[in-house]
Amino acid sequence: MNPPRTDAKRHHDPDVRGFASDNYAGAHPEILAALALANGGHQVAYGEDDYTAHLQQLIRAHFGASAEAFPVFNGTGANVTALQALTDRWGAVICAESAHINVDECGAPERVGGLKLLTVPTPDGKLTPELIDRQAFGWDDEHRAMPQVVSITQNTELGTLYTPEEIRAICDHAHERGMKVHLDGARIANAAAALDVPLRTFTSRAGVDILSFGGTKNGMLFGEAVVVLNPDAVSHMKHLRKLSMQLASKMRFVSVQLEALLAKDLWLRNARHSNEMAQRLAEGVRAVHGVEILHEVQANAVFARLPHDVSRRLMERYRFYFWDEAAGDVRWMCAFDTTEDDVDSFLAALKEEMAR
Amino acid sequence: MNPPRTDAKRHHDPDVRGFASDNYAGAHPEILAALALANGGHQVAYGEDDYTAHLQQLIRAHFGASAEAFPVFNGTGANVTALQALTDRWGAVICAESAHINVDECGAPERVGGLKLLTVPTPDGKLTPELIDRQAFGWDDEHRAMPQVVSITQNTELGTLYTPEEIRAICDHAHERGMKVHLDGARIANAAAALDVPLRTFTSRAGVDILSFGGTKNGMLFGEAVVVLNPDAVSHMKHLRKLSMQLASKMRFVSVQLEALLAKDLWLRNARHSNEMAQRLAEGVRAVHGVEILHEVQANAVFARLPHDVSRRLMERYRFYFWDEAAGDVRWMCAFDTTEDDVDSFLAALKEEMAR
Amino acid sequence: MNPPRTDAKRHHDPDVRGFASDNYAGAHPEILAALALANGGHQVAYGEDDYTAHLQQLIRAHFGASAEAFPVFNGTGANVTALQALTDRWGAVICAESAHINVDECGAPERVGGLKLLTVPTPDGKLTPELIDRQAFGWDDEHRAMPQVVSITQNTELGTLYTPEEIRAICDHAHERGMKVHLDGARIANAAAALDVPLRTFTSRAGVDILSFGGTKNGMLFGEAVVVLNPDAVSHMKHLRKLSMQLASKMRFVSVQLEALLAKDLWLRNARHSNEMAQRLAEGVRAVHGVEILHEVQANAVFARLPHDVSRRLMERYRFYFWDEAAGDVRWMCAFDTTEDDVDSFLAALKEEMAR
Amino acid sequence: MNPPRTDAKRHHDPDVRGFASDNYAGAHPEILAALALANGGHQVAYGEDDYTAHLQQLIRAHFGASAEAFPVFNGTGANVTALQALTDRWGAVICAESAHINVDECGAPERVGGLKLLTVPTPDGKLTPELIDRQAFGWDDEHRAMPQVVSITQNTELGTLYTPEEIRAICDHAHERGMKVHLDGARIANAAAALDVPLRTFTSRAGVDILSFGGTKNGMLFGEAVVVLNPDAVSHMKHLRKLSMQLASKMRFVSVQLEALLAKDLWLRNARHSNEMAQRLAEGVRAVHGVEILHEVQANAVFARLPHDVSRRLMERYRFYFWDEAAGDVRWMCAFDTTEDDVDSFLAALKEEMAR
Repeated sequence: MNPPRTDAKRHHDPDVRGFASDNYAGAHPEILAALALANGGHQVAYGEDDYTAHLQQLIRAHFGASAEAFPVFNGTGANVTALQALTDRWGAVICAESAHINVDECGAPERVGGLKLLTVPTPDGKLTPELIDRQAFGWDDEHRAMPQVVSITQNTELGTLYTPEEIRAICDHAHERGMKVHLDGARIANAAAALDVPLRTFTSRAGVDILSFGGTKNGMLFGEAVVVLNPDAVSHMKHLRKLSMQLASKMRFVSVQLEALLAKDLWLRNARHSNEMAQRLAEGVRAVHGVEILHEVQANAVFARLPHDVSRRLMERYRFYFWDEAAGDVRWMCAFDTTEDDVDSFLAALKEEMAR
Repeated sequence: MNPPRTDAKRHHDPDVRGFASDNYAGAHPEILAALALANGGHQVAYGEDDYTAHLQQLIRAHFGASAEAFPVFNGTGANVTALQALTDRWGAVICAESAHINVDECGAPERVGGLKLLTVPTPDGKLTPELIDRQAFGWDDEHRAMPQVVSITQNTELGTLYTPEEIRAICDHAHERGMKVHLDGARIANAAAALDVPLRTFTSRAGVDILSFGGTKNGMLFGEAVVVLNPDAVSHMKHLRKLSMQLASKMRFVSVQLEALLAKDLWLRNARHSNEMAQRLAEGVRAVHGVEILHEVQANAVFARLPHDVSRRLMERYRFYFWDEAAGDVRWMCAFDTTEDDVDSFLAALKEEMAR
Repeated sequence: MNPPRTDAKRHHDPDVRGFASDNYAGAHPEILAALALANGGHQVAYGEDDYTAHLQQLIRAHFGASAEAFPVFNGTGANVTALQALTDRWGAVICAESAHINVDECGAPERVGGLKLLTVPTPDGKLTPELIDRQAFGWDDEHRAMPQVVSITQNTELGTLYTPEEIRAICDHAHERGMKVHLDGARIANAAAALDVPLRTFTSRAGVDILSFGGTKNGMLFGEAVVVLNPDAVSHMKHLRKLSMQLASKMRFVSVQLEALLAKDLWLRNARHSNEMAQRLAEGVRAVHGVEILHEVQANAVFARLPHDVSRRLMERYRFYFWDEAAGDVRWMCAFDTTEDDVDSFLAALKEEMAR
Repeated sequence: MNPPRTDAKRHHDPDVRGFASDNYAGAHPEILAALALANGGHQVAYGEDDYTAHLQQLIRAHFGASAEAFPVFNGTGANVTALQALTDRWGAVICAESAHINVDECGAPERVGGLKLLTVPTPDGKLTPELIDRQAFGWDDEHRAMPQVVSITQNTELGTLYTPEEIRAICDHAHERGMKVHLDGARIANAAAALDVPLRTFTSRAGVDILSFGGTKNGMLFGEAVVVLNPDAVSHMKHLRKLSMQLASKMRFVSVQLEALLAKDLWLRNARHSNEMAQRLAEGVRAVHGVEILHEVQANAVFARLPHDVSRRLMERYRFYFWDEAAGDVRWMCAFDTTEDDVDSFLAALKEEMAR
């Protein structure tokens, strides 16, 4: 059987991979296969299709009977839609200073949602009840944006992990103060794999109210989902998704990708693999004199500090980014398709450049 | 060769099609093939990939040497990003009352972009210089949102078409008054096919400044593009796309779909076919006594007026929507995958229900 | 007793008045006297002062036991604060196309409140249940901004009046459909004077949920109030007022002006007088051949149509505005300080210019 | 001569003053006299009046030939209007974490202006080039809100002062990086009095581009002004003021108050007096064992740390606020009308409560 024809051409080398980001990877082959399955014929647009209906069963199996998924396009969209759902016009969101919603979304939470972010510096990207309290006050003070949500990221932007107990403590703390909890799960699969627990353990069961479920970095072509865990906390999610410009007309193609991940264990296989590759990478880096691992490597990210000139030479061979250029900190990410050879070659290159 | 495995299941009948909307259709097989081509290996995220680079060549070939494409997720995103690019904080957009941006985007232009829409009733969804002038005044009056953009849709939400000369006249009129022109091209391929002219004839060459190029309704899985035709009219499109939550991380997969459409003639084949099916449908409908065709059928939409009870019975067999329920007006859309048999079966059903 | 010194100088002739707008007038002397009364000593800022507390008693006397006033700076601020209070993020407001919120606020409802306005053309600036129904649909349709509020203006921007029964019918109609009612009362005193009824008759008693109470055009120096009539419809008004940048620090000075108006009958004296002057003006105009009165003169506005050249010459003697320049329509407003001599002199000038 | 009658009543004791805030004070008598001067007759609304025109002369005299004033209602309005004038839709504002725009405006900059604030912790409320650099990066990175403005407060929310040289250094630093500078001058008169320099020395001459000129805390009834110092940096201020709901119809009454302040030296007399009272207060406090002065007392604010129980008892006699309740920090403000007796009585009360 010949592959179907297309007028598009291949413009890249499918054998070249790096460590710049887990979204430099493409889609897992099983994801493409799922797209083909869902194709053909007509399906009701905008989410009334059979794939989105079926997805709800999987979401309930993973997150509990009251969970509901709202597929969206990307992580910023998931976060801003979810946060709007938990806030009034006067609401504010407490988050770590390093949170993606604060530093990586070009102000979309503020501009699209009119949200005020109340940020707290953290040593490792993780909030605690004590850190939350630095911003959790003044609910009756009209001069202050009202803290209505605590937003945490699991695993964090620094590759660190909350234990389920830590998230439970945050949720209890927030709820006691009348606040809701949002979890940015752009890499939630890596977190579950690293903790070796079901997804619900540190989300619905820990008291999280709403979740941005990450698909793209876990091997999807595109797509994430806002997952409502506490239906009492929100309403009119469909309207919010639409006005946030995150409503896909051919939604079956987002939903079937999520199905491919969640029906069995693709989400976990992908996450475990990228986590393991990060462990392999970290182990190798620790053996290189002069390179310092910065945070505990708990998921698929390795943060390291090394001499600037080494970084720059290495970047000519492998594209990656400074995390804190002044300090010489860099981030290396492993993806679902990173191979042991990829890691070993990269380590060899690192050693070469350190030796020059 | 076995198809790749996936844990997802097929939940629908790929042989069932209807006339509710061209976005009920799935993706063209050549589009899926293009996705597979672009998959594998790592590519720089967020638009620095080889597919997005190559797309620019195709865009320039179709729209002229200064055109530049900014792939986005969906039509609302394309429109709101494009309109923000042409407006100041105090700007307003003149559009037809029936425009998608006015009636079908849950207020996203107002909420996300802070845009004021100055609407004009039209008989057929088309603006004219005279109709524009009903709102084109008061540029120095701070009490009035300043008209800075005229937004037209080609083909319109009512399935009607502007001639290239009509668009030229609108652009000249707008430009003489210091306004820019946006074209919502959610079905631009159908328009070009119906007019039998290149895409540039009624866009860049007619004076349009910025364009929402529609991909989804033309057979893509998802994805559209903001195409800047007049680079002097805009700046910082990348920032605008990001803050509008329309920046795909794995952008290669949007770009390669657009490449599959635009590299040769897939865009035109798909559009011509759906237009032809609409002609076949319209011809058949005209032969049914008691059903009135409402607008000239110029692209892939057929608007008709028929008795409510007939519509309701027919809707039980084929899902479609009232356009104006009070008047009994309905919309039937043909897609790239509509077959002659589909049309004929639908006509037979219509006749049956009319005869009951 | 010498007047207190000031380094400011008088720059205008206090004996010159015109017919351009009721906000060309200054403040009523009793208003200035009230400001002096409230001055001196310290009072808690931001609304916890004794004047704002006392104002609530007057508001309850006028509007009923559950009414509460939130003083703000200006009419746009009152309207946008009030409308935000009645809408969710996905909400829309049904209003007349000629409404001030639609045509005279530079898009502030859209930009500050993210509000979608669903406009309806009207012959006389007045909505009816039938006109409302042109936009009152689609509550479950996420593609449509959800109609949550009907906003009416009393008296309208065209100088016309709703009867209390008409407002009651609108409120019933809106409430039956789950919508709330806002009344823009920039000239509410003129309306009450013209109808010869208490303020509550066509507001709280007719079912209005929230009110923009106009003070500036009724003789105040500055200041309006959002008056909540139905406390179940709103919450957190203080936060909304603050984030809408309408919170006065020295609020006692807004509140005492409102007290001066409402404690006895200053509001009514001012309104009756300006209404009477408009009647005198209209009567005089009707006697001028070639000048047509356009709407029924029910409050303090006279709309007329006359030859352009006459208008232009007259504008050199008295500043006023075209309402619809193409049609030759102009608006003449009377204020609390308009004198019979002012009217007669203006009529004489009009006759002179008509005779040239 | 009898005072003009009014139906309003006096509800407060004009002889009671405290130290809670300089906006607990009323208006200076010369301000009321100026209002009376500007009253009477008709003046063009919305800023085309003779008082606003005359104000421009005074503004140019104080700030230089290219300065232009745009009177507004309040400080939040001035700040948000000014910051919108300096930013694109993708822009961000670097400010101290303690800035009023960050902590005291209920998110109005984010909600009304869609602004992203990039905050920096400071020891004393003052930014420096080094502190600015913690946020001044990433102009080409679409994931980051683009730093376009540095906003400083003079004197700061902590009562501290920038020298003219420090402001010059900040402006040079910002301008070299393509950023503009906004100065929040809610207490600008106190700063000028404390520095003993003309207003222009640390504003226009130091390179500030736009200014929020504070009037309310300097003895006005209400009102501030956005003062554009660098006309090349902004455009369409009138539209921005209107859409920000800060356009006063009877603007003459804001402008004449500003005239009363700026025509001669009322602004300076008021500021000097409140500064002197703060010095007297600070001196007295320093003599009280167990009470610590926290920041250098440079203007009209005294920050102190004292035992909680003392603060609470004292608050029953004089209303004032905790600045940092956990730490026991309080803020005492002097106003233009604070008397030496007020200070001495307060010090006596403080000593009494410390002694209990």
